[in-house]
Amino acid sequence: MNNFHYHNPTHIVFGKDTIATLADLIPADKKIILIYGGGSIKKNGVYDQVAAALKGRIAVEFAGIEPNPLYETCMDAVKLIKDKKIDFILAVGGGSVIDGSKFIAAAACYNGEPWDILAKGGEVKAALPLGTVLTLPATGTEMNGNSVISRKSSDEKLAFYSPKVYPAFSILDPETTYSLPKNQLRNGIVDAFVHVMEQYATYSVETPLQDRQAEAVVNTLVEISGRVLTQEKDYNASASFVWCTTQALNGLINCGVVQDWATHMIGHELTAFFGLAHAESLAIVLPGLWKHQLAHKQDKLAQLGERVWNIKSGSSKEKAQAAIDATVKFFHSVKMPTTLKDYNISAADIQKVVTRFKERGTVLGEHQNITWKEVEEILTLCL
Amino acid sequence: MNNFHYHNPTHIVFGKDTIATLADLIPADKKIILIYGGGSIKKNGVYDQVAAALKGRIAVEFAGIEPNPLYETCMDAVKLIKDKKIDFILAVGGGSVIDGSKFIAAAACYNGEPWDILAKGGEVKAALPLGTVLTLPATGTEMNGNSVISRKSSDEKLAFYSPKVYPAFSILDPETTYSLPKNQLRNGIVDAFVHVMEQYATYSVETPLQDRQAEAVVNTLVEISGRVLTQEKDYNASASFVWCTTQALNGLINCGVVQDWATHMIGHELTAFFGLAHAESLAIVLPGLWKHQLAHKQDKLAQLGERVWNIKSGSSKEKAQAAIDATVKFFHSVKMPTTLKDYNISAADIQKVVTRFKERGTVLGEHQNITWKEVEEILTLCL
Repeated sequence: MNNFHYHNPTHIVFGKDTIATLADLIPADKKIILIYGGGSIKKNGVYDQVAAALKGRIAVEFAGIEPNPLYETCMDAVKLIKDKKIDFILAVGGGSVIDGSKFIAAAACYNGEPWDILAKGGEVKAALPLGTVLTLPATGTEMNGNSVISRKSSDEKLAFYSPKVYPAFSILDPETTYSLPKNQLRNGIVDAFVHVMEQYATYSVETPLQDRQAEAVVNTLVEISGRVLTQEKDYNASASFVWCTTQALNGLINCGVVQDWATHMIGHELTAFFGLAHAESLAIVLPGLWKHQLAHKQDKLAQLGERVWNIKSGSSKEKAQAAIDATVKFFHSVKMPTTLKDYNISAADIQKVVTRFKERGTVLGEHQNITWKEVEEILTLCL
Repeated sequence: MNNFHYHNPTHIVFGKDTIATLADLIPADKKIILIYGGGSIKKNGVYDQVAAALKGRIAVEFAGIEPNPLYETCMDAVKLIKDKKIDFILAVGGGSVIDGSKFIAAAACYNGEPWDILAKGGEVKAALPLGTVLTLPATGTEMNGNSVISRKSSDEKLAFYSPKVYPAFSILDPETTYSLPKNQLRNGIVDAFVHVMEQYATYSVETPLQDRQAEAVVNTLVEISGRVLTQEKDYNASASFVWCTTQALNGLINCGVVQDWATHMIGHELTAFFGLAHAESLAIVLPGLWKHQLAHKQDKLAQLGERVWNIKSGSSKEKAQAAIDATVKFFHSVKMPTTLKDYNISAADIQKVVTRFKERGTVLGEHQNITWKEVEEILTLCL
């Protein structure tokens, strides 16, 4: 096991009717900005619940954070925050709204050009306090210090992490997921699944507890996905779905383990160039990357096969290969496409992504053995 | 799934040579008291590591926190803290030292008689900040707000919980466990196992992720216990052991589930009256309580049988019974006795415990169906 730090100060408030407790979670002297997305919270009743809970305490609203939140949009919010002297951000929405709000919280306190936080690793020395009401379980951003922001002017999608942007609290009411369209539920399931795999399907440094905690999340996702997708207001299935997505990326299962994240890095470029949803990009890249890196990931993939997909026979290599096939089958079972062809992306199109990795000189993977050349080979396996 | 709050602000610093980072974890302006136990940290080198890391920053030391820490001893430390105007507690030791230090941290800021925190649920409105260096993995106290304190003058052992006494940080260096005697290692394994069971072997409110996270801990404990007990400085086994004991009682696996804790409440009285170590008392009570409550716990015990003890055949009731037998066998495999007879405690002795429950009118268990009468029946099954 590797040495690690684990420190997650986010206060989770989980369950039915918990939005009503919002007023107790934000200090009374705070001037609040409510940040949300395209307005779905006005249709599904969440906006009304938030407004009722805070009884006139919202100083200003900022709507319009888009999927794959844009730097340009976030900077409009920063201007508003500075103009109105806001000192608390309440983000109500899914991963994009919360990621955007984290960047806004950091950018509002940043000396210099905030894009540097993303592009140059500029240190976030302070951030506005942030609370969230999660309405789309998927990314785990409600309980971590991660954020991913896109920039329209340069077709870029970049991530940052800071201990300063962990939400002070996150309200997770599974009933808010009832109104989600099927493709967003499917995306959430696949997103959480792949998050776990980035922290699991590498090589072992003997972390049996963390391995089993990771398997706990994916076994549960597999068990409940059918019930979640029926959209039949199945509370317990929704609750487990929400808690799985949070546990998939809150720092717990990566304690002391070796991580990968190459699938995410390549997937981000598919989103940046071709507009795929985050989870859609992951479901394409993961199987191709696993096939390409089979020799390096074989032991863990075989363990995944045994403990999640119930593959009991065959050699370690055969189990690993069967685990890849079973994972693809699982993605298909939730109606998630797994090839570039499904989105009409051709071999020629791949070159855009390859060129970007070549220009940046990025090296990926737990063995740091994936250069632009391997990205090309991997994406060719994803056609 | 039940509604829940999860909020654990403790910063875990885990791994080899991490005690050397102590100075960075305590603000430079703090006046530190070092609290420890019977002096084992002077023999195993931990005291020297702490002193070297803090380079003369320790203002005062308080040694002599005993196993099952006494209120009387803790109050001596409180007096010292007030006399010396101390504002940071560094607890170096096992569960007793840390539990004692939590009570000291709260008592030092309490208006009124501090025993009321334990006996009357007196509210802890403030506590001194506390950091820990764990040297005996078992209770999970290094990452929670729990503390159990005994009072010599009245043969009582009582618990309190407060969000104010979570350690600000806990350093977990698995190498500190190398010098532990076998019976303390055994106690730690059993303690963590029973902690998980108090939060698992009840009835289901459909929490499949939490169930699997709980099983992850006990499966890992079972897997590594043999290696831990060989005392062969097996780093990875020790590291998993330490992390299991922390994860067994840091608030994670009890999110949204139904809990029991009757085994602990009865066990505390065995410790108070007969001086058994905490884990020794738990290993006696748990099997008796499970046999007595089989009808209520059958589904979860059968699941334990299937997923931990690999019991695949038989009815649900048969699997549950076999799971109890397998658990007893596991306790025996780590050389832990499981009957009152092993400690020469007789049927007549039991009456002391029964009388106390009768006097207090305590009702226990997830169904609140265990009165002093059932305590008597359960302890009779433990003879």
